[in-house]
Amino acid sequence: MIRKQLGIRLKKLRSTQTQLSQEEFAYSINMDRTYYSSVENGNRNISLLNIKKIATGLGITLEEMFKDIEKEDIKWAKKN
Amino acid sequence: MIRKQLGIRLKKLRSTQTQLSQEEFAYSINMDRTYYSSVENGNRNISLLNIKKIATGLGITLEEMFKDIEKEDIKWAKKN
Repeated sequence: MIRKQLGIRLKKLRSTQTQLSQEEFAYSINMDRTYYSSVENGNRNISLLNIKKIATGLGITLEEMFKDIEKEDIKWAKKN
Repeated sequence: MIRKQLGIRLKKLRSTQTQLSQEEFAYSINMDRTYYSSVENGNRNISLLNIKKIATGLGITLEEMFKDIEKEDIKWAKKN
């Protein structure tokens, strides 16, 4: 569940913080694009260091990354 | 660095949110105590599911867990 919630949140943040595609964003943080894609899809039990790497790429703190994450639902994902 | 920052933060939160020792807290969330101890010591690249497990045990959100974490320094750890 938390993996899905983080994935939805990251998809939203990538859109609001950058104008990059998944592939472009992954490239910008030197992360494998299939790995990054699976994180956004909620299929990875991502580790702290990679979480931090993504936050840095988005230009946000971890607090901001996890803001209201337990409240994220699939409405946004459905709209986009 | 982020591992150390999280470790310091968790040590503080365990003290403020619970009155449990490392061992008691680890037991309460069904986590190996040596594993949990190494997380507080900043020596583990902990994964999202275990981060969530700890937050649940502390009774807080992930947002709260990571609040100001990039600003955490070792002052608190030195005092305690």
